[in-house]
Amino acid sequence: MPSVSIDLNSDLGEGFGTWTLGDDDAMLELVTSANVACGFHAGDPAHLLQTCRAAVANGVRIGAQVGYRDLAGFGRRFIDMTPEDLFADVVYQIGALDGLAQTVGSAVTYVKPHGALYNTIVHHEKQAKAVVDAVVAYDPTLPVLGLPGSVFLSLAADAGLRTVTEAFADRGYTPEGTLVSRREPGALLSDPAIVAERVLRLVERAEIVAVDGTVVTVDAESVCLHGDAPSAVEMARAVRSLLTERNISIAPFVS
Amino acid sequence: MPSVSIDLNSDLGEGFGTWTLGDDDAMLELVTSANVACGFHAGDPAHLLQTCRAAVANGVRIGAQVGYRDLAGFGRRFIDMTPEDLFADVVYQIGALDGLAQTVGSAVTYVKPHGALYNTIVHHEKQAKAVVDAVVAYDPTLPVLGLPGSVFLSLAADAGLRTVTEAFADRGYTPEGTLVSRREPGALLSDPAIVAERVLRLVERAEIVAVDGTVVTVDAESVCLHGDAPSAVEMARAVRSLLTERNISIAPFVS
Amino acid sequence: MPSVSIDLNSDLGEGFGTWTLGDDDAMLELVTSANVACGFHAGDPAHLLQTCRAAVANGVRIGAQVGYRDLAGFGRRFIDMTPEDLFADVVYQIGALDGLAQTVGSAVTYVKPHGALYNTIVHHEKQAKAVVDAVVAYDPTLPVLGLPGSVFLSLAADAGLRTVTEAFADRGYTPEGTLVSRREPGALLSDPAIVAERVLRLVERAEIVAVDGTVVTVDAESVCLHGDAPSAVEMARAVRSLLTERNISIAPFVS
Amino acid sequence: MPSVSIDLNSDLGEGFGTWTLGDDDAMLELVTSANVACGFHAGDPAHLLQTCRAAVANGVRIGAQVGYRDLAGFGRRFIDMTPEDLFADVVYQIGALDGLAQTVGSAVTYVKPHGALYNTIVHHEKQAKAVVDAVVAYDPTLPVLGLPGSVFLSLAADAGLRTVTEAFADRGYTPEGTLVSRREPGALLSDPAIVAERVLRLVERAEIVAVDGTVVTVDAESVCLHGDAPSAVEMARAVRSLLTERNISIAPFVS
Repeated sequence: MPSVSIDLNSDLGEGFGTWTLGDDDAMLELVTSANVACGFHAGDPAHLLQTCRAAVANGVRIGAQVGYRDLAGFGRRFIDMTPEDLFADVVYQIGALDGLAQTVGSAVTYVKPHGALYNTIVHHEKQAKAVVDAVVAYDPTLPVLGLPGSVFLSLAADAGLRTVTEAFADRGYTPEGTLVSRREPGALLSDPAIVAERVLRLVERAEIVAVDGTVVTVDAESVCLHGDAPSAVEMARAVRSLLTERNISIAPFVS
Repeated sequence: MPSVSIDLNSDLGEGFGTWTLGDDDAMLELVTSANVACGFHAGDPAHLLQTCRAAVANGVRIGAQVGYRDLAGFGRRFIDMTPEDLFADVVYQIGALDGLAQTVGSAVTYVKPHGALYNTIVHHEKQAKAVVDAVVAYDPTLPVLGLPGSVFLSLAADAGLRTVTEAFADRGYTPEGTLVSRREPGALLSDPAIVAERVLRLVERAEIVAVDGTVVTVDAESVCLHGDAPSAVEMARAVRSLLTERNISIAPFVS
Repeated sequence: MPSVSIDLNSDLGEGFGTWTLGDDDAMLELVTSANVACGFHAGDPAHLLQTCRAAVANGVRIGAQVGYRDLAGFGRRFIDMTPEDLFADVVYQIGALDGLAQTVGSAVTYVKPHGALYNTIVHHEKQAKAVVDAVVAYDPTLPVLGLPGSVFLSLAADAGLRTVTEAFADRGYTPEGTLVSRREPGALLSDPAIVAERVLRLVERAEIVAVDGTVVTVDAESVCLHGDAPSAVEMARAVRSLLTERNISIAPFVS
Repeated sequence: MPSVSIDLNSDLGEGFGTWTLGDDDAMLELVTSANVACGFHAGDPAHLLQTCRAAVANGVRIGAQVGYRDLAGFGRRFIDMTPEDLFADVVYQIGALDGLAQTVGSAVTYVKPHGALYNTIVHHEKQAKAVVDAVVAYDPTLPVLGLPGSVFLSLAADAGLRTVTEAFADRGYTPEGTLVSRREPGALLSDPAIVAERVLRLVERAEIVAVDGTVVTVDAESVCLHGDAPSAVEMARAVRSLLTERNISIAPFVS
């Protein structure tokens, strides 16, 4: 029987200056891939450097969590950027984080878009292509992390990038396999035991139970654990604990 | 007889969004090293990328012109940053520009601090050391460009960095060999013929005539031509023309 | 015979720190209403204060040109803000400029949205309502300047605000009376004589000739003269000169 | 016997976008004056508006907590600004907050500089004068809150502004009556009972016991309770409780 393995990723380094967000130290003991902010939606350089150092100390891979230039909106507001501007913004962010990561003996090993950019390029072809082009131009060996079925991953695959699909541990799913909007009931889960069971089923059987009870097939190489929810650390601990108990290997998708 | 060679550098890429500054295209035909802004005192990523592309097209070397995070003040106001924050800000900026430069087939080949940071680390040991540490941590083979006799170049040399001294074509000098303050008379020169003669004398004899008529010895491997003065392009043309006429090789200090 | 009068408005104060845009001094001698930036898409406070002072010296009315928080994009990119955030951003900007204007013996006398916000609220009800609500909450006696037929002006009128319609001197019009997109041919006019004749016809007969030759009825109390086009000042002079020659009074729409 | 009264002030509204700082709701039930951030060191407009609304609901006075334009440094880093730029930045901030406050039926009733600006103008004459000039230009009836003996309060008094002195509940004092540097032992106090006793003695007898045991005379019309310390709310509750118990009236210094 082949061994089963899964990557756990989380958004980290999302403070700015005096402000902090979530418990990065606790999460870094639980995940295998850190989507580190790059300064445009969050993350001043000193904070990012500290996050990279802590990631290295915990053996966690560093990914560039690129976003819109929008500190006031935390990158959660769509901005109608030209592909040219978005291309340059994404390269700038990856390069900046990569520079910081290199000073602590590591490097950016993948790219995951953040917030409104993540959601936009599920369907927005021009912006999706700009992000893909930016990764290809910076380093075509960098994998990209995204939503299964998204235009982003499709264009990335076309461009020869390694694509890594992810599922969300604490989000409700529609019968179509997409995420329930945050404005709808059932969008967010918070019970650690339930979340852990869902992740286990996802990893073992590629199944998620949708809000209406339908069983949906979701193929994911990585599971996103949000780091800023009130019970974030507790959920992450429950997930990790249950997977370990079931002999599922928890390992980064990049070696 | 050994051939004489000099590098000509200029601050470029210093627009932001809709705003431009100086005539980058004209200057890139005249200089050999472009101190490209990195986004903190000037330079949005799309603008920087375009500057890198134009530098490559003109065979001009790209340097990272790192500065304080201060768009409103154009990096010309001292900020009392901790060494830790400054270290991270400098690494972030070099990495970001390096990423952009790499996508056009080039790379950051040296580092030159900008504005108030440049002036501060002539004497401010902690900030000077933070900048040196940042360059060493990012890439210890990168030369740094600075003022002869500055604490910055002294600490850089101690740290094993290659140091490159520069003189200023359009600035008045004191009898002690420092720059006349911009608030004093004689601080700025604008006559292209006079500026060109001064640069020639500097290159051929390592001499500059100070405001009081004293002849000062100034050892410089590079000459800075400001790109945003009203007669900037005209001055640069006059300098280049006179040096060429005298068979002085104009070449970057990095190969 | 009743006298005919028209207001001429222009976007001013749109530099930032070291960067300038357009020739504010020249434009302030030609227009009657200055749409002064408020710091979010352009305009640092010192620059804005200087613009207010110059407006007062020229007897020009000061309007608050509110925009999206987007210096890098000059407020020309749609941002999908919540009405709550937009409401607060607009009040903040009006208050800030009003404070500056008060220190030079004047005040904000009207509000004109800028760039992408201007275009968005032609049709986007929620954002249009947020801007209207902000003006009403700040000072319900402030008129708003906008596009005839826009959702913005319609909601503003419903809310009891005085609405002032404007036409664009240097923009092409469609047969439907809307502006030709900047991506289409005929979007921008640059010949001062032609522009002046168009403005005259608009003022005297409320007519504009569309790109296809159709004569369109456009009712405008104010004409916008762009200040940052290459021939901006020349166009503005031609307009003012022709109107004056025809005995048309050029006066602000607010007393 | 005359009744004794004291104002309690605290820094509030110091989040930004998704980031929060301190427990504003709890503090607003305990203090009488809220030093509300103005967007330059902290505070996006929507957050500031919410803070103003909550202040009004609690009967708490709103002051403009003006600071350096430095989100990344939270306004805690000295910036070597020109008086002209600082003047405009201060007016801009007061006006912006005043606009927001007016929409909830209130107004800015005093000005208190923040962080590095507060500390700088204890002694820096040019910056102190710029802040004073800005308040006078905006509204000469606004009181300013500051450190007893500071150049700032001295210049403010010369300019005809009402000056209000403050003491710090949780800070150690030197025998000279200045604050112990945060880098020295004894700079911060955290025991609610001790802090409350110190405030009581200050209010009743104008005395503070310095770090070396000396009794220092400190004349303060207001006491600053920091809102972001770990035990901030507990300290504030202890202070309020003890003062109330001793029949000391807790009331704003502006009516």
